[in-house]
Amino acid sequence: MTRRPVTSVDVARLAGVSQSAVSRAFSPEASISPAMRARVLEAAATLNYRPSRIPAIMLSGRSLMIGVIVGGLSNPFYASALEQVAVSLQASGFQVLLVHVDDALTLDAALNQLASYRVDAVITALAIGTRDTAEALSALNIPAICFNSRFVGRNISTITSNNRQSGAMAAKIMRECGVRFPVWLAGPARNAASRERRHGFFDALTDHALIDHALIDHALTSDTPSPHPILELQGNDTYESGFNAMRDLLDRNFRPDGLFCSNDLMACGAMDALRDHGGLACPKDVIVIGYDNIPQGAWHAYDLTTFDQRTEKLVDAAMDILNDAFRPGAKALSRKIVVAAALVVRRSTAKAPPQVR
Amino acid sequence: MTRRPVTSVDVARLAGVSQSAVSRAFSPEASISPAMRARVLEAAATLNYRPSRIPAIMLSGRSLMIGVIVGGLSNPFYASALEQVAVSLQASGFQVLLVHVDDALTLDAALNQLASYRVDAVITALAIGTRDTAEALSALNIPAICFNSRFVGRNISTITSNNRQSGAMAAKIMRECGVRFPVWLAGPARNAASRERRHGFFDALTDHALIDHALIDHALTSDTPSPHPILELQGNDTYESGFNAMRDLLDRNFRPDGLFCSNDLMACGAMDALRDHGGLACPKDVIVIGYDNIPQGAWHAYDLTTFDQRTEKLVDAAMDILNDAFRPGAKALSRKIVVAAALVVRRSTAKAPPQVR
Repeated sequence: MTRRPVTSVDVARLAGVSQSAVSRAFSPEASISPAMRARVLEAAATLNYRPSRIPAIMLSGRSLMIGVIVGGLSNPFYASALEQVAVSLQASGFQVLLVHVDDALTLDAALNQLASYRVDAVITALAIGTRDTAEALSALNIPAICFNSRFVGRNISTITSNNRQSGAMAAKIMRECGVRFPVWLAGPARNAASRERRHGFFDALTDHALIDHALIDHALTSDTPSPHPILELQGNDTYESGFNAMRDLLDRNFRPDGLFCSNDLMACGAMDALRDHGGLACPKDVIVIGYDNIPQGAWHAYDLTTFDQRTEKLVDAAMDILNDAFRPGAKALSRKIVVAAALVVRRSTAKAPPQVR
Repeated sequence: MTRRPVTSVDVARLAGVSQSAVSRAFSPEASISPAMRARVLEAAATLNYRPSRIPAIMLSGRSLMIGVIVGGLSNPFYASALEQVAVSLQASGFQVLLVHVDDALTLDAALNQLASYRVDAVITALAIGTRDTAEALSALNIPAICFNSRFVGRNISTITSNNRQSGAMAAKIMRECGVRFPVWLAGPARNAASRERRHGFFDALTDHALIDHALIDHALTSDTPSPHPILELQGNDTYESGFNAMRDLLDRNFRPDGLFCSNDLMACGAMDALRDHGGLACPKDVIVIGYDNIPQGAWHAYDLTTFDQRTEKLVDAAMDILNDAFRPGAKALSRKIVVAAALVVRRSTAKAPPQVR
């Protein structure tokens, strides 16, 4: 037995018909007699023949494949988002051409690959980091959908969480819990969503005069030049970065009573440092808020209050954009869709009694 | 501006050459004058043209696409394995056609889709549950590689962890730690890897007479008919199932001093139940061993001793099979490869002093 897949030529030979008859037998709308179709289908079944989509792709230019670009599946949020995107695309009759890229620098190379397979659209969970990459995406001349990215352009639509409002909501919770030393644990500088969350959090804190610089100065050790670096910790969206940032803060004898983290992975790391390194109990000594609602945040060791990005809504929005973009005569789309996150309250903010300021 | 991608016809028109010249300009081995090639490449750059792979797929029957079948990306082990498979395939010039299936029942439908795109091979992280599915895979007439599956057949190769030996190793650790009430937390019955791990664990426990039925009988409450259901807990590979199984055991006043879990997710759940529900400290009161070495097992809240499946070795083995299968004149492969897991010792088994029996 040969290794090559069975082709329509093999089926035609066995059925004693032309190759074109095989092709017509597998096209519901084609003209072919019922007897002829039955003969072809019987031969196809015998040979385990499956019709190829490749000729149709060549004729129509439509592959029904969507390029999905991912990086960092070690963050359960992205793994779950990819799973939901794949399920939704498959349910709509699309296939997923998965492209893994380490960072935005290699995105350009990935785009060439995707274009050569004539994907119908591109969905990227990777933020577009530069104007050049955005232009390369636009130049593909197919719909592109970016999650949590700030670049919009011709053919490019973005779908983001309402990061700024969620940041303000986190500040409101700090206020209601009577937090005096709030700490913000940031994602990497290139992460636009993290910057937005910080913006909303800081604006709302300042509005409500929650930051008490005199108290912070008092709490600081002498080798710390200003309170600002304390209020703001830098992470890189990983568990380890959250653990290390909080451990370093505790080593400087600063004991925060409120922590807002740009994502749940860092929040889990920071909570472990608070407990193991600082001897601080959550929520009794410090309240913690994350972002993403990854499964681990619900684990009993963390029980983390967080913002659920509602991935199902993000994915629904992406499917709506695709449907509109593929309508006959549709123009290039450049939508900007914001999906409101849902606050998930768990034990990590259950400070009682609340001391409203 | 139209929405359709730029084609070789557009490039030929702008360059003032034939479509065949455009095609030759993009084939390194084709005969074309340097001047003509430069003219085509300039026009292609102007139009942002990217050559299509589709005609080559049609002519050669080779798509350079590999169908990768996944389910349950909420288990970080599978998310990480997918990431490593994607990276390796891309590095070898392949593209990943991702297919998400909920269970083996929908695998057959997925196979038809994959065949219609003329994928060159199939890699599945999903265990093949039935002989019928194995036969459907064989009938595709392309190489298929299955992780942790027990079915082998024509065109089907399997790559598994040395589950039985690892189970025996877990028993050895229990013995060295002086465990008297060992508990096995199983994955779902359809999980062949879980059955193998149990087999190795139980065989080695029996060999070393570690199970002390008299002591277990003594520890049981009266409404428990036999010690057997206690020694063996049933989970479904999720965190929640591990938590619930252990909580139910503790509710029956059974306090294990050693726990081997078929995967890390269940181990994390069981550890949270041991601490929060049973007030048992790990490793002082109970030692815990998992399987998979997911990132969460290394988190400070767990610090879990586990078996690392060495995904990079599993993936390397898959790439070797693909390379051999695609050699000219290669016969259908049916390999069975076993990769030895690496024991990762962490605090969850750091019982001191060890009481060797």
